[in-house]
Amino acid sequence: METVTVNLGSRSYPIFIGTDLLANVGCFLRQQGLRTGSTAIVTDSVVGPLYQKKLADSLLQAEFSPIVIEIPSGEEHKNLTWLSFVYDKLVAGGIERRSPLIALGGGVVGDLTGFAAATFQRGVPFVQIPTTLLAQVDASVGGKTAIDHPAGKNLIGAFYQPRLVVIDVNMLKTLPEREFRAGLAEVIKYGVILSPELFTLLEQHLDSLLRLDPALLSEAIKICCQLKARVVEEDETEGDYRAILNFGHTLGHAVENATGYTHYLHGEAVAIGLAFATRLSQRRGFCDEALHERLCRLLKNAGLPLTIPPGITGDALVAGMATDKKIAAGKVKFVCVEALGKTCFENLTVREISTYF
Amino acid sequence: METVTVNLGSRSYPIFIGTDLLANVGCFLRQQGLRTGSTAIVTDSVVGPLYQKKLADSLLQAEFSPIVIEIPSGEEHKNLTWLSFVYDKLVAGGIERRSPLIALGGGVVGDLTGFAAATFQRGVPFVQIPTTLLAQVDASVGGKTAIDHPAGKNLIGAFYQPRLVVIDVNMLKTLPEREFRAGLAEVIKYGVILSPELFTLLEQHLDSLLRLDPALLSEAIKICCQLKARVVEEDETEGDYRAILNFGHTLGHAVENATGYTHYLHGEAVAIGLAFATRLSQRRGFCDEALHERLCRLLKNAGLPLTIPPGITGDALVAGMATDKKIAAGKVKFVCVEALGKTCFENLTVREISTYF
Repeated sequence: METVTVNLGSRSYPIFIGTDLLANVGCFLRQQGLRTGSTAIVTDSVVGPLYQKKLADSLLQAEFSPIVIEIPSGEEHKNLTWLSFVYDKLVAGGIERRSPLIALGGGVVGDLTGFAAATFQRGVPFVQIPTTLLAQVDASVGGKTAIDHPAGKNLIGAFYQPRLVVIDVNMLKTLPEREFRAGLAEVIKYGVILSPELFTLLEQHLDSLLRLDPALLSEAIKICCQLKARVVEEDETEGDYRAILNFGHTLGHAVENATGYTHYLHGEAVAIGLAFATRLSQRRGFCDEALHERLCRLLKNAGLPLTIPPGITGDALVAGMATDKKIAAGKVKFVCVEALGKTCFENLTVREISTYF
Repeated sequence: METVTVNLGSRSYPIFIGTDLLANVGCFLRQQGLRTGSTAIVTDSVVGPLYQKKLADSLLQAEFSPIVIEIPSGEEHKNLTWLSFVYDKLVAGGIERRSPLIALGGGVVGDLTGFAAATFQRGVPFVQIPTTLLAQVDASVGGKTAIDHPAGKNLIGAFYQPRLVVIDVNMLKTLPEREFRAGLAEVIKYGVILSPELFTLLEQHLDSLLRLDPALLSEAIKICCQLKARVVEEDETEGDYRAILNFGHTLGHAVENATGYTHYLHGEAVAIGLAFATRLSQRRGFCDEALHERLCRLLKNAGLPLTIPPGITGDALVAGMATDKKIAAGKVKFVCVEALGKTCFENLTVREISTYF
């Protein structure tokens, strides 16, 4: 088992990464000093049937008494209605101020449960068991919790750190291949913005990763968590530096928005955004064409989309970007790349960005 | 103008207290470095018509462009439905991550707006202009924001510090006398738990306060803010020590709950709670009967209720306490008083507490 510690003073916490960890979650919770007794598992209708029993058994053995709260699977349920549903179940289940809330699922479950944990009784202990590659490399570090609003993704949320994250790479075996590939987009992003070594590792061992080699998976996930932890430790609440993590996301979010959050998985939209941001960087003279080509080759080998689909107009994307949280005084702080591991910011209006479509 | 600084490291902020400050809020916001342009005033249907124009004019002069969001007056609107209404208006009004959100109103407006500020775009700058005595002495320090849940008051919320609080004592002239008296219950609480000097000042100058003498009002409010700041500085997120501020509130909340939040104002329920907590303290041998009598005299002179109304059963109160956030392992950390300025904690089951009715 690998451990990555996210160092945030009194809000520091460990991430455990390895195989067959789910059966040990109860022990881990006790090791972290979380109070036994009432606890809640929040999961969804896809992940719950696969893993909630194993998790509940592990908790019961460690003297936790879990209730299970199941929400329907899908981003369209990451909203106030289902948050309210979770609050009601927490009240009915007798969850108290020190009762741990455990998110068992992908990004939707993690984001919504994290926000519920941040706000129920003004904050209860939060534990994450991310079950998708995307959630493992992205949502396990950073403390970003949120729900969507009809006007935009993640418009309502909080910065709230978990007490513990458990990443069991075995759980990726039940993840649909398309979702696994989508998660790779985020892994590739870390390579581009922070680590030439990771980028090279991905280029060289993509096939083994796609075959779910557990050692290689653990290694790649560990590197991503370490890289993101370094960024978040420097800038916990997204003052400035942390914004580099949005590389590929400004357009990615707009693509998701313009396609109603149904056509693409988040990681697929991010892949399109990565290719776009690199092309914009090249056209503005920050990086050379070779880098753009190298990135596109890796994304393509990972089975990810590269281009904005023909049905989507620039206007629709611009409208999506105009409600992006990163807007300040009408300009978007757009993340550009200069070389692998080296980024810079450009303040661009959405109109300027749209000229690169 | 008096200034009380709440020292919380990077989350420190000033409270300005004085007369005729409303017309200067625009300048204050600029002095605090808040970004001009989009901003939102959240107010209610009672306070809005009285003061929103003056506030909006002050903001416009300082180059802020305010939208006004009005919610209906009353605790029954401090819920997810009206929070969602506020989110929608913030989106529609183009509020961005650095746009200030200004609460103009009493505790309900402050709590709900503060929670909206804590969670919209994962946090936007929050400014409080409390217009009731209760909100001025209680809600302006501490960073507690919340909405109610059908199962209990303030069950959903966040700790989120404002960037600035402006207390204009002139605004108390339009506060109904009953609400002013209810606010005095909270002022009296600070005297009991933290300051014999404040308690004596209240005993000696109650009549002048009830006549809204501006100098005395500013002084009393300043003392309360200083006292609460000292507590919150020591314990920002209610670990242990801060719980002394709940003196009188465990029963107070239960009384509000049992009467459907309509019969009593919060401060009136707290007054009943203060008398009850002091009697319980005396019966358990922590303080003498003289203290209980002295407190009851002051509460009575302030026109506040002292006793649980005959229609309310102990069972109803117990049921209310059982969902209190301060419950841990089935016990309530009940705040008792030993002498003016000296408190202690007793861990009691709700059944034990109910024996003192």
